Amino acid sequence: MVTKDQYRQVRLWCETQLKEKVIPFWMNHSIDSKNGGFYNCLSEDGTVYDTTKNVWMQGRQVWMLSKLYRDLDQNDTWLKTARDGLSFIKTHAVAEDGRVYFSVSELGQPLSIQRKIFSECFYIMALAELGRASGNQSLINEAELVFERVWHWAFHPHELGIPELPGVPPKTTSLAIPMILLNVIETLTDGDANRYVQEVDQCINRLLLHYQRREEKVYETMHVSGKVMGGSVGRLMNPGHAIEAAWFLLHWARILKKPELESTSINMARVSFDHGWDKEFGGLYSFLDADGHSPTVLEWSMKMWWPHCESLYAFCLNHQLSKDEGDWERFTKTLEYLKKYFVDDNHGEWYGYLDRQGNKTHTFKGGPYKGFFHVPRALLYCMNVLEALEKE
Amino acid sequence: MVTKDQYRQVRLWCETQLKEKVIPFWMNHSIDSKNGGFYNCLSEDGTVYDTTKNVWMQGRQVWMLSKLYRDLDQNDTWLKTARDGLSFIKTHAVAEDGRVYFSVSELGQPLSIQRKIFSECFYIMALAELGRASGNQSLINEAELVFERVWHWAFHPHELGIPELPGVPPKTTSLAIPMILLNVIETLTDGDANRYVQEVDQCINRLLLHYQRREEKVYETMHVSGKVMGGSVGRLMNPGHAIEAAWFLLHWARILKKPELESTSINMARVSFDHGWDKEFGGLYSFLDADGHSPTVLEWSMKMWWPHCESLYAFCLNHQLSKDEGDWERFTKTLEYLKKYFVDDNHGEWYGYLDRQGNKTHTFKGGPYKGFFHVPRALLYCMNVLEALEKE
Repeated sequence: MVTKDQYRQVRLWCETQLKEKVIPFWMNHSIDSKNGGFYNCLSEDGTVYDTTKNVWMQGRQVWMLSKLYRDLDQNDTWLKTARDGLSFIKTHAVAEDGRVYFSVSELGQPLSIQRKIFSECFYIMALAELGRASGNQSLINEAELVFERVWHWAFHPHELGIPELPGVPPKTTSLAIPMILLNVIETLTDGDANRYVQEVDQCINRLLLHYQRREEKVYETMHVSGKVMGGSVGRLMNPGHAIEAAWFLLHWARILKKPELESTSINMARVSFDHGWDKEFGGLYSFLDADGHSPTVLEWSMKMWWPHCESLYAFCLNHQLSKDEGDWERFTKTLEYLKKYFVDDNHGEWYGYLDRQGNKTHTFKGGPYKGFFHVPRALLYCMNVLEALEKE
Repeated sequence: MVTKDQYRQVRLWCETQLKEKVIPFWMNHSIDSKNGGFYNCLSEDGTVYDTTKNVWMQGRQVWMLSKLYRDLDQNDTWLKTARDGLSFIKTHAVAEDGRVYFSVSELGQPLSIQRKIFSECFYIMALAELGRASGNQSLINEAELVFERVWHWAFHPHELGIPELPGVPPKTTSLAIPMILLNVIETLTDGDANRYVQEVDQCINRLLLHYQRREEKVYETMHVSGKVMGGSVGRLMNPGHAIEAAWFLLHWARILKKPELESTSINMARVSFDHGWDKEFGGLYSFLDADGHSPTVLEWSMKMWWPHCESLYAFCLNHQLSKDEGDWERFTKTLEYLKKYFVDDNHGEWYGYLDRQGNKTHTFKGGPYKGFFHVPRALLYCMNVLEALEKE
């Protein structure tokens, strides 16, 4: 039986981390007040080691600041910073055809573009959340327009330049697509069950294909028929990704009031954690091969910050709904691992990358895929749940 | 002073590895006698864990078998296997427009294509070497035709689908391009100094831009002006790649009889080794940041088989020309590291991937980027040099 005082103590830790260690790190070091946008390549102590501006990180930071403004504190500096960030993205990162670049230079010149929809997704989330935070409906309308294009591209990737080749089974599905779309729609609608009903339904069904319940495994890539594909790609599992997908799904199960989907989501996180946790050295593996072969992905055994952030929130939320002590154990196991290996009370923000044994392999706090996003999102979301648990 | 007996002992070790441990592994496990081509995704013991056929590996294996036929033993099975492999590539891996796929299925259906020239380069090397091994001039002529296209694409990457974006300095150069082209031309001409004179000259000059002699560093990406670019990409170094480039260059210095280029190449390998060797745990880092920042590449601190294969041959060759004991020390240091961590006398072929401390992270012997190539090439080339040293 977990006590209210236990909830409170963890909530206070999350609050201190968020308010004193994480937000100040980014507010002090990431803002480019001269050229606009955010520096996201920041060393251990916040020094800029690369002036490239990665657009996922630009969109995510705008979203996060707006979310904090709405949920934590109506801090005008946060709102102004989010506005400036969005303006940089709109001016520099959106191409004429609506595609959003992957990276731009310090001054905003396009550097690279992916054949993927994620830059666009984080742009939508930035537009919608800032629209709500600032009461600007036109930003939400704009987000909806961008979403229309993204929805099309999500299921027609060849229009993004990925070649159609005869050997590739034409009907494969990647876990990343339905899950990011569910998260995008949640932000876009602010959790309104009556909007995008068909799209949400389609994404939920697509996502559930990846969760093979009988064998208790979540596959990254599947046939749309629901058949497991085989081969290194077909056997690939990413426990942190599956845990993140599970709480995206759980949010929708609650919005749609579907208890069966709720329990499926709860289990999806559990099996992914139990299979993905390294019994020898602790922490969640980055990738696994479902049949136990040596994965070919180079970083498979590395322990990264973001799967642990996802796990922290997923099991906090699981526990709120299930009151299961096993969920609370997974939560505290994750928390202890994070505290031991990732948290940096000295400079603020958390480290990102360890080897299997837990040695730090990279010391930077921000990089091409690490920004003001996973850590503060997990802390904020956990705080909200823990506060509710205290009041129950 | 290194003795002839030392040379002899190492040569015998290389010969045993090559003939008894490496060639049999691939001849026993990689040949797909039903569908043609080679399985290149092989577990520790040779079991196929993925039937995908990666085309770099198909071309490299044809090249290697043909080279072994010419240099080691006129074994008819090797020649027949090379012929069958080439036939699989020609039938299945070459697109109508001359592009060569990156991977095909077990049956040869195209699975993926890169916006890079490397599949084409290994196809040229396969055509030319098999042409010489089998006395078939038409294969060499065909290799020359493919090379014409590749030469054009090498300097017009946008024609391969890489978008031209305004923020990217239009005149950047990547070490991989001039170095692979030098290796390809060496194979295509069988080291004839009178062929492709301008192309060779252009590649040598381009390659030398990457070697900043004053600071003794070799950069992966440079301005064509010879200016270091800055940023994570501009500061990125790959010691194994630089050592490989150095011996490619050294081959050409000898072909062209340019003693100054010879000593530049020898030094290029030395500075790359001395900077790239991990003083704490041994082995060559995969990547480094020239200014000592935390590299963003996830695998930067991993120790991989191929940089050590390149280092083995590079310092064997360096030593042959310089008679320098420092070069021999680098050679034996590499050899001891290989013996301790990568060699597998039990199943044959070598392991490929370790973490910084030397723990095996992956147990497969063949994968999407590891095939019948780096290990046997290094062993064969070292044997040839050591034999010459014994006779001097």
